[in-house]
Amino acid sequence: MKRDKWQGRKRGKKTLGGKGGLKVPRFWGKHAVYAALDNPERTVRKLYGTHAAVSEIVIPEGVEVHYAEAADLARMVPGDVPHQGLVIEIEPLPDLFLADILENADGRPLVVLDQVTDPQNIGAIFRSAAAFDAAAIVTQDRHAPPENGTIAKAASGALETMPWVRVVNLSRALEEMAEAGYWRIGLTGHADDTLAQALPENSPVAIVMGAEGEGMRQNVEGHCDQLARLPISENMESLNVSNATAIALYAIATR
Amino acid sequence: MKRDKWQGRKRGKKTLGGKGGLKVPRFWGKHAVYAALDNPERTVRKLYGTHAAVSEIVIPEGVEVHYAEAADLARMVPGDVPHQGLVIEIEPLPDLFLADILENADGRPLVVLDQVTDPQNIGAIFRSAAAFDAAAIVTQDRHAPPENGTIAKAASGALETMPWVRVVNLSRALEEMAEAGYWRIGLTGHADDTLAQALPENSPVAIVMGAEGEGMRQNVEGHCDQLARLPISENMESLNVSNATAIALYAIATR
Repeated sequence: MKRDKWQGRKRGKKTLGGKGGLKVPRFWGKHAVYAALDNPERTVRKLYGTHAAVSEIVIPEGVEVHYAEAADLARMVPGDVPHQGLVIEIEPLPDLFLADILENADGRPLVVLDQVTDPQNIGAIFRSAAAFDAAAIVTQDRHAPPENGTIAKAASGALETMPWVRVVNLSRALEEMAEAGYWRIGLTGHADDTLAQALPENSPVAIVMGAEGEGMRQNVEGHCDQLARLPISENMESLNVSNATAIALYAIATR
Repeated sequence: MKRDKWQGRKRGKKTLGGKGGLKVPRFWGKHAVYAALDNPERTVRKLYGTHAAVSEIVIPEGVEVHYAEAADLARMVPGDVPHQGLVIEIEPLPDLFLADILENADGRPLVVLDQVTDPQNIGAIFRSAAAFDAAAIVTQDRHAPPENGTIAKAASGALETMPWVRVVNLSRALEEMAEAGYWRIGLTGHADDTLAQALPENSPVAIVMGAEGEGMRQNVEGHCDQLARLPISENMESLNVSNATAIALYAIATR
């Protein structure tokens, strides 16, 4: 009896806000919700919205619609984030495989994130990657958060269009990229060459970014063809990781 | 009696978390706190910290130190932001004047923000501006938030070193920049030229950024010498404003 009770509470806690697998991910905000509804690969289970916000969209078949007041929606999202009248419950996207991405990349850049965990930064990186037409974002499964509402909001729709490849072993993934002809540049403050010096004239580029503070793990750094730094002042140790990634993507696009 | 009670509650609310003038701004996180303590222009009234975190720093004279448990500090900062054992109560920095900045700018870039309000983005822009050695960030007083802990944290110390000029009238400020020899480039998706095409060979550049979604106000756009866009895919409408600013600063630094 006691044990049953404990299990029940534990399950309840997980469902409401824990990190467990039972929690249904929610997205919010117009851009993120519109893009999820438009994505044929995305299963949207439920949509909660104000009458005004729901009246502006065409709801695909199979989505359960629940009308709600703005104040109710506010309680469904963390803190005081702007839900813009729309909250959805979604299923994660199907797994993607690096080999499939490489086959269709057509020379477009890859963005490899080693242990970057801040969801705002990851979302902004998705947005920039989509803007500069990258082929995919690659993370290591154990060291990156799952899809969530904060990432989706910051990605401004790009979470639905930019392939996210989650690999078990980042070093092995970097080897696959090299075999596919990618030049792997690791961005780090302690490199001698600047990014401009390190960029090859034509080869496709995989840009590798480490976590803020700690940087790339040594093993990941060892799997880069070249390390490069951004030409920043000595007054600042580093840039925000999404800003640094955006610069790298711009530099690749305009080389 | 009833009225007194109501007033009391109202005042209490403001002090704890409202937008009123009675609230003392707090900064948190190692980078932001270290930089504030190192800044001779910054008045730090109180420091709340764990024994471990406080033992790592030299406390300047005049700062009242209160030892606290991590859980107490967590209640002093919004949501679940990482305070890293340090929270300070500060006074805003003294006002700066554009004329003084222009006199000492020595050709370094200026970043003009029109109605950018998100504190994470503003903080990241401070960080990038410091990294690329900009002369100042210029905002319009009515359309930008005051210094706050979220900005300071995202700025990673740069809020203390990068001059923030708050002007009453952004159009007038842009005229002053032109008189000082600055080429004013407004970044907007609807421009014909790319940023690379718009950058002058040598002149100092003021880069003008609008709010996400709305962009620059028409009057501000009218005070630019040239409009320019970043070369992004048609699939994305725009970049995150801090990412776009970082790219612009990189493009200026490497032209």
